[in-house]
Amino acid sequence: MNSLTSALTMSNPVFVTYMIAAALGVIKIMGQGWMTVYRMMKTDSGMVSPEDVRKGWTNKNPRPEQLDVNDYVDRSRRMHRNDLENIPAFLAVGLLFVITGPSLLMTQIVMYGFVAARTAHAIAYGTKQSHEIRATFYTIGSLLVIFMGVWVLIKAFGAL
Amino acid sequence: MNSLTSALTMSNPVFVTYMIAAALGVIKIMGQGWMTVYRMMKTDSGMVSPEDVRKGWTNKNPRPEQLDVNDYVDRSRRMHRNDLENIPAFLAVGLLFVITGPSLLMTQIVMYGFVAARTAHAIAYGTKQSHEIRATFYTIGSLLVIFMGVWVLIKAFGAL
Amino acid sequence: MNSLTSALTMSNPVFVTYMIAAALGVIKIMGQGWMTVYRMMKTDSGMVSPEDVRKGWTNKNPRPEQLDVNDYVDRSRRMHRNDLENIPAFLAVGLLFVITGPSLLMTQIVMYGFVAARTAHAIAYGTKQSHEIRATFYTIGSLLVIFMGVWVLIKAFGAL
Repeated sequence: MNSLTSALTMSNPVFVTYMIAAALGVIKIMGQGWMTVYRMMKTDSGMVSPEDVRKGWTNKNPRPEQLDVNDYVDRSRRMHRNDLENIPAFLAVGLLFVITGPSLLMTQIVMYGFVAARTAHAIAYGTKQSHEIRATFYTIGSLLVIFMGVWVLIKAFGAL
Repeated sequence: MNSLTSALTMSNPVFVTYMIAAALGVIKIMGQGWMTVYRMMKTDSGMVSPEDVRKGWTNKNPRPEQLDVNDYVDRSRRMHRNDLENIPAFLAVGLLFVITGPSLLMTQIVMYGFVAARTAHAIAYGTKQSHEIRATFYTIGSLLVIFMGVWVLIKAFGAL
Repeated sequence: MNSLTSALTMSNPVFVTYMIAAALGVIKIMGQGWMTVYRMMKTDSGMVSPEDVRKGWTNKNPRPEQLDVNDYVDRSRRMHRNDLENIPAFLAVGLLFVITGPSLLMTQIVMYGFVAARTAHAIAYGTKQSHEIRATFYTIGSLLVIFMGVWVLIKAFGAL
């Protein structure tokens, strides 16, 4: 592939690897919103806006305490926040990583490694595993994104 | 367009559709920050950092209760958070969707549909409409992003 | 560069400018997570999940008050949130800005200006400078992203 041909085509397996990891990351972010919705509906609590305790077809029995913090629901919001602290950065730097022309094997290790680490983090957080277990998976995901960031930076300085 | 030509050029109307939707999404995220600033200045309250209740040219009459939660200001922060849970994922997956080569009509429906759903969600949230109305627009926007995520995943697996 | 050639290659100095700014933005987001971890470990407090006050090798002396809000730790979380409100939007719109074919000088001013403004914002926030100083740097960064958003929108409408 010469430097004037785009790396961002589906005939480039390195890019296809990114497509898969990125689509999974996007689906994870959106799915976390639905986990929050599910947990709010199941417990009929954990709302955050005053108008949500008005009577309506999704809230037949409104009570002020529906606005109290509920760990079951708030846990899903914290998982969502953690996703937002990690996945959008991955999505952006992953695309640039592809353009630097890494090997397919390295791309698969870094990108599927990120997906695996974030999946394990979500399971650990959702099932209230110890801080140490959750932090281990957070660390793996974070270091993979930082690795890609430093890699892109070095390649870009080399191209100046 | 053959597989070695980039879809990411302004001569591709599918990509131009994405540019418009993405630029509007970016402007929405940034504008939400300014709505928070406006609401803080208008009510002279709703700050979140201790140093913000020091005397200064933007705070002539500092009082500790300026750090209390104020729904008028906090509503704008919740709208912002909701944007961050939806728009960055759209921005990333929308670009990949373009590269899979969808029809212009489908792209317009999905992308302008997302912009319309998020606009309606913001109006519903900002004007304190019922949870049911707000949730309907959230659902439309979320399902459109999930649709693009699944579409990209299927196309990527097909290209392996 | 004709309209069918991708702007997203390392032989395009405008794109390389984006790569540098984007990689720095990604590293900033991820680094903010590590600043929160550092501050939690240094003060042995500021946790947010109930299971984090269980005994473990990172928490030898668990106490319920470790879940209280601690400004030293929470400040890092607020910085992180502010990053998420600004940097992902920059990452997405910056890529589109490159594709519109701006001059190298303008790209450098806008993108390195964003990096500089966000760096100054982080220093001001982390060292508890006055609201006015922090707000000034926030404003510069925000306006640069909005400028790129409006620019991309105008160029896209022009290409319809």
